Amino acid sequence: MPEFLTLLPPDEARALLLATLPAPTPASQASGTDSALGRVTAEDVVAPHPLPAFPRSTVDGYAVRARDTYGASDTLPGYLTLVGEVPMGAAPALTIGSAQCALIHTGGMLPPGADAVVMLEYTQPARAGEIEIQRAVAEGENVIRIGEDVAEAQVVISRGTRLRPAEIGGLMALGISGLRVAKRVKIGLISSGDEVVPPGQTPQPGQVRDVNSYTLAALVTQSGGEPVLYGIVSDSFDTLKTTAMKALNECDLVVITAGSSASTRDMTAEVIAALGAPGVLVHGINTRPGKPTILGVCNGKAVIGLPGNPVSALVNGYLFVVPVIEKLLGIPAGKPKPSVKAKLTVNLASQAGREDWQPVRLTPLSPQGRGAGGEGEKVDRGWLAEPIFGKSNLIFSLAAADGLVKIPSDATGLSAGEIVEVFLMP
Amino acid sequence: MPEFLTLLPPDEARALLLATLPAPTPASQASGTDSALGRVTAEDVVAPHPLPAFPRSTVDGYAVRARDTYGASDTLPGYLTLVGEVPMGAAPALTIGSAQCALIHTGGMLPPGADAVVMLEYTQPARAGEIEIQRAVAEGENVIRIGEDVAEAQVVISRGTRLRPAEIGGLMALGISGLRVAKRVKIGLISSGDEVVPPGQTPQPGQVRDVNSYTLAALVTQSGGEPVLYGIVSDSFDTLKTTAMKALNECDLVVITAGSSASTRDMTAEVIAALGAPGVLVHGINTRPGKPTILGVCNGKAVIGLPGNPVSALVNGYLFVVPVIEKLLGIPAGKPKPSVKAKLTVNLASQAGREDWQPVRLTPLSPQGRGAGGEGEKVDRGWLAEPIFGKSNLIFSLAAADGLVKIPSDATGLSAGEIVEVFLMP
Repeated sequence: MPEFLTLLPPDEARALLLATLPAPTPASQASGTDSALGRVTAEDVVAPHPLPAFPRSTVDGYAVRARDTYGASDTLPGYLTLVGEVPMGAAPALTIGSAQCALIHTGGMLPPGADAVVMLEYTQPARAGEIEIQRAVAEGENVIRIGEDVAEAQVVISRGTRLRPAEIGGLMALGISGLRVAKRVKIGLISSGDEVVPPGQTPQPGQVRDVNSYTLAALVTQSGGEPVLYGIVSDSFDTLKTTAMKALNECDLVVITAGSSASTRDMTAEVIAALGAPGVLVHGINTRPGKPTILGVCNGKAVIGLPGNPVSALVNGYLFVVPVIEKLLGIPAGKPKPSVKAKLTVNLASQAGREDWQPVRLTPLSPQGRGAGGEGEKVDRGWLAEPIFGKSNLIFSLAAADGLVKIPSDATGLSAGEIVEVFLMP
Repeated sequence: MPEFLTLLPPDEARALLLATLPAPTPASQASGTDSALGRVTAEDVVAPHPLPAFPRSTVDGYAVRARDTYGASDTLPGYLTLVGEVPMGAAPALTIGSAQCALIHTGGMLPPGADAVVMLEYTQPARAGEIEIQRAVAEGENVIRIGEDVAEAQVVISRGTRLRPAEIGGLMALGISGLRVAKRVKIGLISSGDEVVPPGQTPQPGQVRDVNSYTLAALVTQSGGEPVLYGIVSDSFDTLKTTAMKALNECDLVVITAGSSASTRDMTAEVIAALGAPGVLVHGINTRPGKPTILGVCNGKAVIGLPGNPVSALVNGYLFVVPVIEKLLGIPAGKPKPSVKAKLTVNLASQAGREDWQPVRLTPLSPQGRGAGGEGEKVDRGWLAEPIFGKSNLIFSLAAADGLVKIPSDATGLSAGEIVEVFLMP
């Protein structure tokens, strides 16, 4: 059993892996905008026309020529002739001339001649056909000009953007009913270990069910990939190599979870080394869980060896598999990860130099009000982070956890009462 | 145009709405575990058997009877007779008797007679068939007992849990290949406004495309609901009421986005009042955007009126529509929302007493290293939150934003340099 030669810090290990991978050239496919939620844009989206396409009022009030209001005030109001009302959803038939105004609603199209809108609350009807104006407006006030939101030919959504509801809406606002998105990348998943049996099978003494194929498949799916399961491979170099080579040919990334014994973990590294150049980049990472993680690149594709322990495999899936999928989809690095700040309930020890990821359950710091409180009541009272311990490291310590607390490598632990950042596991 | 009678704070408004809704009775359906990612459990999941199902070693080493190691140390080691090796994936054929040991791998089944494992690094081969033990172990050391992770009949995943990769793995570990999940709840979406046309249509002057049906449909989909689009309804009380009544009969929640003018917003409230008892609960919320939001309950179902402005509709969708969907699915309230802490780049003014939600773009606080840095380099340097302003409030101010900063109602603004919490818009 060879010893780990170097233990890289996780951030460094990930950066090395991503830097060694060639620049992604994601294949794209057409998608309707209304079914593109969660997909990643394969090209920049350019506005085919300006938004708004006509000058619009942002308030309810009277469309005017701004200069006709200069000097108007509560005590010395001006008076304008009412020439009509701007209809919603149509171009106004009227024109605003000198000393004239027209009733306009929020979102209504500014009539020709008008260059500003006086809010309703600063006006009142005077004599029939006349409106009293109690406040002056500047040119453009309470108006959105043509193209003020989006100019024609402006890049409104850049390539590599994961589409959220807001982007779907933006595309619809521009009448873009379809676009090209990155194809889901194929991620090959191999479980190894003589002790591992499929979940549908009743394990005999000494056997355990395959968990990693399914946690990682779910992680791949929610990250925008398509999992391809290659099943469970016995602890044999040749079998593992043959299966891994097939997966490497058919997929964009291969993830092998090793059996739990040290010899099978080492075999994974030997297989990755034999799959193609440059082979193993990182063998051993200075983190817990995840020390035996192996990162490799073979013939331009990433191959990741994860420990067989299900907690370790999933935590390191978040740390290493997801960033590779994002790179393959063309998503730029450096987006924030969802987290919350929370108060740690107990001391957490850690070894200096090693980065630890501790599963925690989050509970509200104090009982949440039901809205009965008075003015100024704050409902966001914060969170308590309660570590979930278990020497077994079985998957239910993660299923019970809302997130993971990182104990940085330069700390020897965290203290009870300390405010920590909890990475929420999606 | 009636004035808003009372403006409730958003948290209070939401609490009132949720408290007025009857207790949810989510309909359930069968799902395969491997396709249940993101679905919500409709009943408690109970462990059919303990985990682990047999005593397992957590390390590579030698299975022993603990009492045979008492007193062993570097300088005064003990010696045990090696009786064999525990195979991976099978029950060991051997038994550990007095002064005996067997080689065992991580995850291997503890042989009968053994009650602890000595780690490999505290042993070395002595004479043929004999192992030198350099450290004592206590009973149970480096062993997971039967049921130590999960006991038989233990509730391992409670009802109302949204299934993540960890839960999928936990179910597989127990051989649970299918379970009952809450049916997707149906959310009826109605857009109103004479100025609104379908996105496929080229707007004439004065017209705008329907954005809200699609942003809200995407939000509903990703929250676990099934959007039902009722299209665009003209600014007519009777038409809107007829459509809303149909939606209320067919769906679990109805969301109406009003046209942008004040009169259509007020019409929405009148329609909700006419749909069923108790009708309108909240008309006007002390927030920006979203002041004209209307919350109602009609015949036991929530009806929400959102402003027609797409930014306002989507932001208030996150604040009010998503929590109702979660309640309908049986998810308990009070789960943390994903956020990040960030440093505000500029001052943000706000009106005291009103809660503001400001779209911001997040950029790394300082350029991110590419892993080239030395030991102890910290990559999590934090984020800058740069507000996206725009009087237009059109949808691209949200499409450009990573999240929303809340300016609490008891603040009159936030200062540049202040650390703020940014709610990440999923």
